[in-house]
Amino acid sequence: MMSIFTKIISGEIPSYKVAETNDFFAFLDINPNAPGHTLCVPKKEVNKLFDLDEKTYNELMQFSRKVALCLREEVSCKRIGMSVIGLEVPHVHVHLIPLRDMEDMRFSNKVSLDKETMQDIADRVQERFNNSYK
Amino acid sequence: MMSIFTKIISGEIPSYKVAETNDFFAFLDINPNAPGHTLCVPKKEVNKLFDLDEKTYNELMQFSRKVALCLREEVSCKRIGMSVIGLEVPHVHVHLIPLRDMEDMRFSNKVSLDKETMQDIADRVQERFNNSYK
Repeated sequence: MMSIFTKIISGEIPSYKVAETNDFFAFLDINPNAPGHTLCVPKKEVNKLFDLDEKTYNELMQFSRKVALCLREEVSCKRIGMSVIGLEVPHVHVHLIPLRDMEDMRFSNKVSLDKETMQDIADRVQERFNNSYK
Repeated sequence: MMSIFTKIISGEIPSYKVAETNDFFAFLDINPNAPGHTLCVPKKEVNKLFDLDEKTYNELMQFSRKVALCLREEVSCKRIGMSVIGLEVPHVHVHLIPLRDMEDMRFSNKVSLDKETMQDIADRVQERFNNSYK
């Protein structure tokens, strides 16, 4: 069965896309801890981070770094936090979270943003990513 | 001023060491979210993950992967979670957390382990790391 992220990558489920390469895809978390909360996903569907082959793991981390460097320019924050958990969706995803304080890392307090704000953040980060890395 | 992690790396402050290379150091978090909670640190003292130069970032992620692969063999868990926050100690550190459930990622529930248990976990992971990667 295809994961929800595979459906997002294929476009079957719409998303606020932030970055895409041949092997990786980044989009805004629809239930964000903080504005700009982004998920970086390998197109290859693997459940656990440390089950990825070494090459894909390394490339995912490099892709996530590029997305993070764009995100921190476009979203106000103290720093970008990174988290990989994966207990809910069995398809590796790196959370990049623009942090204001520790609460933004706990996955318990969520923020509600309107569609226009989500689209605006995604567009700005994507434009910077495409200008920097494509 | 030296960070507390620099003092741990130099041995000025004792730690439960898990792995060491020329450029990186891993040790058990003294206030763990779960048994086996480990911190992976570059010896170079840099505050923020995404301020690391690209080479050091990539190598830190590769080092953390090796430690995680050893950790998951030695500590009972569903998977290894990864988190980089850094709002408390201004010296980059990758949290590797053997997860049983989501609560282990929230940094609010802590476990208390005696010295012997901490030392036993550290020794087993370190032995596996040295056998696998040295």
